[in-house]
Amino acid sequence: MDKKIRVGIVGYGNLGKGVELALRENKDFVLKGIFTRRDPSLIDTDSKVIPLSKVLDYKDEIDVMFLCGGSANDLPQQCPILAACFNTIDAYDNHSKIPDYFNMVDDIAKDSNKVSLISIGWDPGLFSLNRLLNQAIFPNRQSYTFWGEGVSQGHSEAVRKIKGVKYAVQYTIPLEEAMEKVRSGNNPQLTSREKHKRVCYVVPLDFNDTNRIEEEIKTMPDYFAEYDTTVHFITEEEFLKNHSKMPHGGFVISTDINKNNHKQRIEFNLSLENNPEFTAAVLVAFARGVYRMSLEGKKGAFSIFDIPLSYISPKSNEELRKELL
Amino acid sequence: MDKKIRVGIVGYGNLGKGVELALRENKDFVLKGIFTRRDPSLIDTDSKVIPLSKVLDYKDEIDVMFLCGGSANDLPQQCPILAACFNTIDAYDNHSKIPDYFNMVDDIAKDSNKVSLISIGWDPGLFSLNRLLNQAIFPNRQSYTFWGEGVSQGHSEAVRKIKGVKYAVQYTIPLEEAMEKVRSGNNPQLTSREKHKRVCYVVPLDFNDTNRIEEEIKTMPDYFAEYDTTVHFITEEEFLKNHSKMPHGGFVISTDINKNNHKQRIEFNLSLENNPEFTAAVLVAFARGVYRMSLEGKKGAFSIFDIPLSYISPKSNEELRKELL
Ligand SMILES: NC(=O)c1ccc[n+]([C@@H]2O[C@H](COP(=O)([O-])OP(=O)(O)OC[C@H]3O[C@@H](n4cnc5c(N)ncnc54)[C@H](OP(=O)(O)O)[C@@H]3O)[C@@H](O)[C@H]2O)c1
Ligand SMILES: NC(=O)c1ccc[n+]([C@@H]2O[C@H](COP(=O)([O-])OP(=O)(O)OC[C@H]3O[C@@H](n4cnc5c(N)ncnc54)[C@H](OP(=O)(O)O)[C@@H]3O)[C@@H](O)[C@H]2O)c1
Repeated sequence: MDKKIRVGIVGYGNLGKGVELALRENKDFVLKGIFTRRDPSLIDTDSKVIPLSKVLDYKDEIDVMFLCGGSANDLPQQCPILAACFNTIDAYDNHSKIPDYFNMVDDIAKDSNKVSLISIGWDPGLFSLNRLLNQAIFPNRQSYTFWGEGVSQGHSEAVRKIKGVKYAVQYTIPLEEAMEKVRSGNNPQLTSREKHKRVCYVVPLDFNDTNRIEEEIKTMPDYFAEYDTTVHFITEEEFLKNHSKMPHGGFVISTDINKNNHKQRIEFNLSLENNPEFTAAVLVAFARGVYRMSLEGKKGAFSIFDIPLSYISPKSNEELRKELL
Repeated sequence: MDKKIRVGIVGYGNLGKGVELALRENKDFVLKGIFTRRDPSLIDTDSKVIPLSKVLDYKDEIDVMFLCGGSANDLPQQCPILAACFNTIDAYDNHSKIPDYFNMVDDIAKDSNKVSLISIGWDPGLFSLNRLLNQAIFPNRQSYTFWGEGVSQGHSEAVRKIKGVKYAVQYTIPLEEAMEKVRSGNNPQLTSREKHKRVCYVVPLDFNDTNRIEEEIKTMPDYFAEYDTTVHFITEEEFLKNHSKMPHGGFVISTDINKNNHKQRIEFNLSLENNPEFTAAVLVAFARGVYRMSLEGKKGAFSIFDIPLSYISPKSNEELRKELL
């Protein structure tokens, strides 16, 4: 493609910064501006920063808008407004609410003749793609997803909300024994406890309070009660030194044993030192697809399942067949 | 989809048998017949076997034809004839000739208003898809493919052609050290010798001949001269007992170290006890895509890069978003 794809970023948190970083590696994009709800003068970046309230002025200057708000509160509110004027891409990851979110965005984007690609990233995203491949290729086997070792923002947040907690981080760790069972092909039924364990590092306001905090963490329903959980209490200094990164990753595995008794395994694995920066790199690649679909006159909401992967590459179909097939 | 997809198999070798096996796991297909150049009465199967010369009689009874002939000689000859009358899918794997093959098939299928999906399987196929993902997500890093541990038919064949060789098999083995270099993110330049080694098991007609045979193998250009190659001479009995399987697999890996010095790795791995049966399972899944594209009125040749992955699942888009995204 000769013309650069003109893009904007809405929301300058971890993901928004990641998109800004990834765009620098991709010469076929030009960043027109970062839109934020905060005072632009407080945002530390060399890019142009614009108040979100002015975003509609840029209607004709932006081909694809990266929506980098949080899934819990920002996207359900921002995406409907923005999809009415822009092609959008987001990393919406509230799995149980994806169908509703999709339908809401689909209605708006169909009316506005825009393309909205939702829930791009790694999970949802690349992991979803691998779950689909596994199921389609091994229709009578389960596809297993293991997360980690990595930081779960949701679980860290839940610990931080406990009274007396100053800082906290929670690592999700997949259990090697469970992964081996899956790889061996006996299609195991695994409980939550058998798949992952949880390890928390907590800085308490008062070290006399640790027994109560530990008890509250370990018995918290949905988040920790169903898992083997270990809690370490550490100092603020150690926390800031060793636990302020955002690593993550995981595995999507499916193993078939077919009627001829042959064992066949498909495995996809990510190991990420920085989760939002990787998610952002995936968003940037798929933004090409949004642009191409919009040029083709497509409209409405789409997921990673709907897009031919040639669309995410800057190369022509001829080049892809010659170099990569 | 309510209506079953009516399919035929052309060529009953390893891949054709694999497709027959995989179809039994997928209830949305019905196998109308296996077409062979051999005398049907000599083919051992419960399926209906039909002389290939009668294939055009089935023009209106088959939605997708699985072309399971060899890539070297069968497909370039059979695909043009069949793509003139049927939607087709094949596992054409002669990488350097894929562009020519694609163009030839594209012309024919465009004329016949049919869909031909070429080069499906794992390499080309799923590995190609992962190479594309790697390049699009990490545009300034290399994507590395390692094959094995597994049997290379081409290399085994090359050894079998040497005078004095009764049976032979060649295993391609990826070198762990090279994979670790790739995973570490230093984007290494690797020679053939640094990526894989080759191990051959040979049954000689005469055990006095082993020095010459070993020398001929190890110095064979393109196939062995560029690799560290080990040759084991074994008895016919041991060969038939331990070396008549067709395992294969491999790895597609890319590791980025971004401008914030974060290391991020994407890795896809297959471990297959039976290469053609796995390839066949992939073909069956993608045959759904051929059928769907043909229902949409698409025509011409396509590759795995051109097809949204939702097309290979029997599930609806709503189900996929709810269950897998
Ligand atoms: N699909 C996947 O694989 C995947 C992976 C990772 C994350 N995600 C999703 O990506 C979403 C965004 O993640 P994130 O880590 O970027 O969230 P975040 O850092 O909390 O940012 C969310 C929003 O909060 C605002 N914000 C950020 N820093 C702020 C600060 N210092 N003070 C006040 N406001 C601030 C920003 O909006 P303003 O600039 O407008 O203030 C930003 O858009 C997550 O909710 C998650 O759902 C998906
Ligand atoms: N893309 C990938 O990942 C991938 C992976 C594996 C293989 N492949 C490709 O798949 C192709 C087919 O592989 P394959 O292992 O099925 O090859 P194969 O067993 O040699 O079969 C090729 C053809 O030979 C004929 N044939 C088979 N057994 C025969 C016998 N006993 N006597 C006489 N003729 C016989 C069959 O045609 P008739 O029934 O008409 O005689 C068959 O269609 C390979 O060339 C390779 O290119 C691709």
